[in-house]
Amino acid sequence: MRGFPTLRSMTHQRSIEDLRAEVDQINRDLLTLLSKRGEVVAQIGHAKTQEGRPNHYDPAREDKQLKEIESLNPGPFTSAAVKAIFKEIFKASLDLEESNDKKQLLV
Amino acid sequence: MRGFPTLRSMTHQRSIEDLRAEVDQINRDLLTLLSKRGEVVAQIGHAKTQEGRPNHYDPAREDKQLKEIESLNPGPFTSAAVKAIFKEIFKASLDLEESNDKKQLLV
Repeated sequence: MRGFPTLRSMTHQRSIEDLRAEVDQINRDLLTLLSKRGEVVAQIGHAKTQEGRPNHYDPAREDKQLKEIESLNPGPFTSAAVKAIFKEIFKASLDLEESNDKKQLLV
Repeated sequence: MRGFPTLRSMTHQRSIEDLRAEVDQINRDLLTLLSKRGEVVAQIGHAKTQEGRPNHYDPAREDKQLKEIESLNPGPFTSAAVKAIFKEIFKASLDLEESNDKKQLLV
């Protein structure tokens, strides 16, 4: 049958392509939302710096966010998986706040 | 001035609270999108298994996604930060596909 895909395999092949196109669109939407979150977090960092709060790391605030996310998680990802993703987002956000602080110090 | 916050500090305090509420809403929207992505990825995993493709890890496909994300990244996150977040999403997705495979084997 090589060279002559069955209708079944053709249907599946197209289906995977369609599903991957949907994943690509979700990736773009995730990137847009993540970037918006980055802008808001940068504003929070700026406000904290202006208030003389140099320590941007706030484990209680992170924990509160993780608890809310865990309570709302509809699946199919496990809570552990969703938390790991959000911890990576928090890490990127903290790096952003701290690098903005350094820039302000240099001005 | 302790106990009597200045208008300036009150304004900032409120502003941080407002910004945090915005972050919380973005978190919920991210969770919704991530969960939708999880559903689509689970369907891809199911289709692959039906086609007799037991190896769900596809580094070329991941690389293609990372390249598109990097090219579209508007900031403020660095490309390295955005890639680290998406790599965590890919990891969760692969775990999901593989755990679904095991469930299908048990049926």
